[in-house]
Amino acid sequence: MENIPSKFVERAVDELSKLPGIGRRTAMRLALHLLKQDEKDVELLGTSLIEMRSKITYCKKCHNISDSETCNICSNPSRDQSTVCIVEDVRDVMAIENTSQYNGLYHVLGGIISPMEGVGPEDLTIDKLRQRFEQEDIREVIMALPTTIEGDTTNFYIFKQLRDKSIKISTIARGVSIGNDLEYADEVTLGRSIVNRTPYEDDSTE
Amino acid sequence: MENIPSKFVERAVDELSKLPGIGRRTAMRLALHLLKQDEKDVELLGTSLIEMRSKITYCKKCHNISDSETCNICSNPSRDQSTVCIVEDVRDVMAIENTSQYNGLYHVLGGIISPMEGVGPEDLTIDKLRQRFEQEDIREVIMALPTTIEGDTTNFYIFKQLRDKSIKISTIARGVSIGNDLEYADEVTLGRSIVNRTPYEDDSTE
Repeated sequence: MENIPSKFVERAVDELSKLPGIGRRTAMRLALHLLKQDEKDVELLGTSLIEMRSKITYCKKCHNISDSETCNICSNPSRDQSTVCIVEDVRDVMAIENTSQYNGLYHVLGGIISPMEGVGPEDLTIDKLRQRFEQEDIREVIMALPTTIEGDTTNFYIFKQLRDKSIKISTIARGVSIGNDLEYADEVTLGRSIVNRTPYEDDSTE
Repeated sequence: MENIPSKFVERAVDELSKLPGIGRRTAMRLALHLLKQDEKDVELLGTSLIEMRSKITYCKKCHNISDSETCNICSNPSRDQSTVCIVEDVRDVMAIENTSQYNGLYHVLGGIISPMEGVGPEDLTIDKLRQRFEQEDIREVIMALPTTIEGDTTNFYIFKQLRDKSIKISTIARGVSIGNDLEYADEVTLGRSIVNRTPYEDDSTE
């Protein structure tokens, strides 16, 4: 993949291959695809990326991406302002919103604590979370971080900040996926789902 | 994946997901990655794509991408000007150049004939190829197109244009990959490799 015969293509391939999950081969394929597109379509792509980065703003309350100072969720009076769900990034907010099962607010950390990747608590919005607990009347916190070592570390770090306050803290349930056969669940998940068994509810009458 | 809470991110995700092999989920992941990068790095990416598309030029002889009117290969006097290798795109030129086994010129078609995708001979540089045969002293043509129905169709189309001329035409050999066990080769390839067997050469004395 050496010796690209144009320095413009070379530069574009260099930049594209900095994206996560995109190697030089894929970058070259994308560059050749773009060369076949209309000039104005490529301009749309390029400017949309630049504009997104330069004009992005975050909700001053929950730090979700937002076009206004306060996002639609935080400024919605029908949402429960006393419950906060803590998530890693905006994709998690979108995923939980899609379930229609949650009516509280969010707090977007912007990442999780990961010493391996050099991400410490100071790189996240944990300070802002602490401020929220002082300024808002928050009574319940739901931790919805990834089920990884990094996620658990972050859970614990935040838990330590909150345990002196009279706040109900929970994590989202881990267990067997709905619609899955037990034999396909991994041991750790299956084990946890037995330890954390929940009282039987008759869903059929719902 | 609906309801991205910022129209700037929405637009970037829309544009990114137009790229081949990138769905909305991957596009969202890329957009969130870019939001975490420095503003000037995202600007570098965006402008490199726009600049590539607007400033790209093609060698007027072989239609490879090139920063000069005639590419480095076509303008190299030590290369055999009487042999032309016909390829689909610049990646094939780079792949063949990497083998160091070819010293002739190329002709880059810019695609292959594919009625399914609406690509006809007029969308490729086949007219320019015909002109080259009138203007240059070409005595041998090597077809190096993909081994697909589209590749075979294109081979045949070009062959029809050339068969009245006294030009030696060949296709690159198809056969069992070097370093592969026979049992892993598919039937068609293995069958072809027997039909097109080559005289034994003792490579060990090289």
